[in-house]
Amino acid sequence: MSLSVRGVRLGVAQAGIKQADHDDLVLIELAPGSTNVGLFTQNAFRAAPVQLAQKHLKDSSGNARYWLINTGNANAGTGLAGYKTAENTCLAVAEMQDCQVTEVLPFSTGVIGEPLFAEPVINALPHACADLDEIHWQRASQAILTTDTHAKLASRVVSVSGSEVTLTGMAKGAGMIRPDMATMLAFVATDAEISSVFLDSLFRQAVSTSFNRITVDGDTSTNDAAMMAATGCSGIAIEAEGAEALAAFTQALESLCLELAQAIIRDGEGATKFVEVQVDGGADADECDAVAYTIAHSPLVKTALFASDPNWGRLLAAIGRAGLKNLCVEDVSLYLNDVLIAVNGARAPEYTEAQGQIAMAPPELTIRVDLKRGASSSRVWTTDFSYDYVRINAEYRT
Amino acid sequence: MSLSVRGVRLGVAQAGIKQADHDDLVLIELAPGSTNVGLFTQNAFRAAPVQLAQKHLKDSSGNARYWLINTGNANAGTGLAGYKTAENTCLAVAEMQDCQVTEVLPFSTGVIGEPLFAEPVINALPHACADLDEIHWQRASQAILTTDTHAKLASRVVSVSGSEVTLTGMAKGAGMIRPDMATMLAFVATDAEISSVFLDSLFRQAVSTSFNRITVDGDTSTNDAAMMAATGCSGIAIEAEGAEALAAFTQALESLCLELAQAIIRDGEGATKFVEVQVDGGADADECDAVAYTIAHSPLVKTALFASDPNWGRLLAAIGRAGLKNLCVEDVSLYLNDVLIAVNGARAPEYTEAQGQIAMAPPELTIRVDLKRGASSSRVWTTDFSYDYVRINAEYRT
Repeated sequence: MSLSVRGVRLGVAQAGIKQADHDDLVLIELAPGSTNVGLFTQNAFRAAPVQLAQKHLKDSSGNARYWLINTGNANAGTGLAGYKTAENTCLAVAEMQDCQVTEVLPFSTGVIGEPLFAEPVINALPHACADLDEIHWQRASQAILTTDTHAKLASRVVSVSGSEVTLTGMAKGAGMIRPDMATMLAFVATDAEISSVFLDSLFRQAVSTSFNRITVDGDTSTNDAAMMAATGCSGIAIEAEGAEALAAFTQALESLCLELAQAIIRDGEGATKFVEVQVDGGADADECDAVAYTIAHSPLVKTALFASDPNWGRLLAAIGRAGLKNLCVEDVSLYLNDVLIAVNGARAPEYTEAQGQIAMAPPELTIRVDLKRGASSSRVWTTDFSYDYVRINAEYRT
Repeated sequence: MSLSVRGVRLGVAQAGIKQADHDDLVLIELAPGSTNVGLFTQNAFRAAPVQLAQKHLKDSSGNARYWLINTGNANAGTGLAGYKTAENTCLAVAEMQDCQVTEVLPFSTGVIGEPLFAEPVINALPHACADLDEIHWQRASQAILTTDTHAKLASRVVSVSGSEVTLTGMAKGAGMIRPDMATMLAFVATDAEISSVFLDSLFRQAVSTSFNRITVDGDTSTNDAAMMAATGCSGIAIEAEGAEALAAFTQALESLCLELAQAIIRDGEGATKFVEVQVDGGADADECDAVAYTIAHSPLVKTALFASDPNWGRLLAAIGRAGLKNLCVEDVSLYLNDVLIAVNGARAPEYTEAQGQIAMAPPELTIRVDLKRGASSSRVWTTDFSYDYVRINAEYRT
């Protein structure tokens, strides 16, 4: 279910980038005066469109008017030629829609290392422009997918001073997912009026508790970006509405981002499990993260999850190699959902294998670790490793 | 092919620890006066036998007489009861063979988290003692395996002053392999005479270039140990033989350890590829290691290797997330064997997909990265991720 956002129009077209007769180009138009913020991959190999989107976002002082997204080709590992392609597609949008080239931000996703040509994109642009409409979120969310099996789309409505503010967002991603920032593409918009500085702080906070807490395979991408725009078309200036309205908006934004981030994990390549890894009792957030991600990335833990095998020995082994200084093994408690399975460095006396198997059987479960070293916590969401993960990634590109 | 080592006798028995009618217990006897050294897992969850072996090695001042090894159960995550079991099996050996309990070092490998009972081990010990013979390396190397498909055994002979010094070693390991120190068991012996202090430095060096440079899945184990003993039974005191003999011995030891370490990778769980990752041109060894291990652990790289797909985009993405400060992407060159595939942040102009496919097709290949930031290098050896990796690790324990 998605709601239109006043001031945001979306157009979809077929450029034939990787395959014919397939929606692979999305143009998102933001009303004049909209503010934009973005977070981009920390991978040193940033794709050409990522470099250009960051530059244009800065050069337009956070007031870009168009987001241009293609699938089928990431335009990454393509050197100077790839950068020129990204520039030329932005120029074409600027000419057609009569705006500055720096007001156009490009995004690409798909195969890495193949040249992306500007011509098919530019040829399809008139169709995307002609298609621009506020009601096209659903179609656009389909068109940005690659190995995803489901569209990822969510909306929230917040009541403020008797009016309504809408937030809608879409995301794509299923593999090469280890956000740092975001290992995927996400586009979120609201019709609230928000200054770019304030929008930046709101969105950073929301991303830090959502897109930046998920991992499928630990592989960060060359093309990640999470974008947010505020069109102001609702006439509601959130910053002026007081603490209660701001809290409601912040909560809606965070829950929207978390829904989209978790949708990426639920659609993880070959995933049969949705797993929350919660680490409590850490001395600081960093060590909680170290334990949580070591568990989430362990191939042995992930294959045990695929087998629904409560193999807690592999969990202890993962905790033990997370690099925590002076970890006292006897203090660590390990739970599957609410079942205590290991304590004092060994199997809990009251634990039975049957309890573990019951906890592991459903498609969703929580692994919880209590380090008993302090008051910090962290949560990450991840998937298992299945035959299909290998198949999808062995076959992709062929 | 393996050679006996004067002063080392090996006995094999069936204790029925995990399955009946299966060699699962090995006792190695070292002649009186032998020196011993060992390197043990850095995992915080060290198994009971690892803790006890470290203690006994220290308490016996590096002069242990017996190494007792069982498979089928790692005696890890077993708490105080597991420690008592390890102690009781050492006591039994000490009583039967009339030595101090601190002269017996225990080693266990197999499933984690299941209780290991002392009784079946102690009951089988008389058979192992009766079986002690210098010629039993081959049978012992078979008996220490778990998910391995091949025994790992190697020998070297070094001529010194008209006499011969022999080195023989065996190892086990196929999964949960990311040495830090060693993620497996290895037992190496020589009939040279070497003080424990000097043996420790020789063996540390050999392990640092062999067992500590391999990874299957990044998962370090709770039970790793690499042991070396020098019986002195050849009558040759290596330290007194001069630089040339010492160099020959050192070279033989390093090549022996490397052969065993690479045998673990060749036998990696589900492995269809043996991959050397070589990183040159780093500012220091740490950053070379960071790039090498990020490549070696990337699930996307490993599934591409399984598919024999020269997907260099995934290699660039892995290099880009290795955490190197100020990495200049344009400087990085990437090779498959001798084929330059990427340079200046993009596909090499002269590279063809056919060249990449030829390089990827054989079961052995080298991925080489030149960072062009300095003069440091590093090499690690790894495997691909296959359907069989998932199958083996989803089915193990069930």
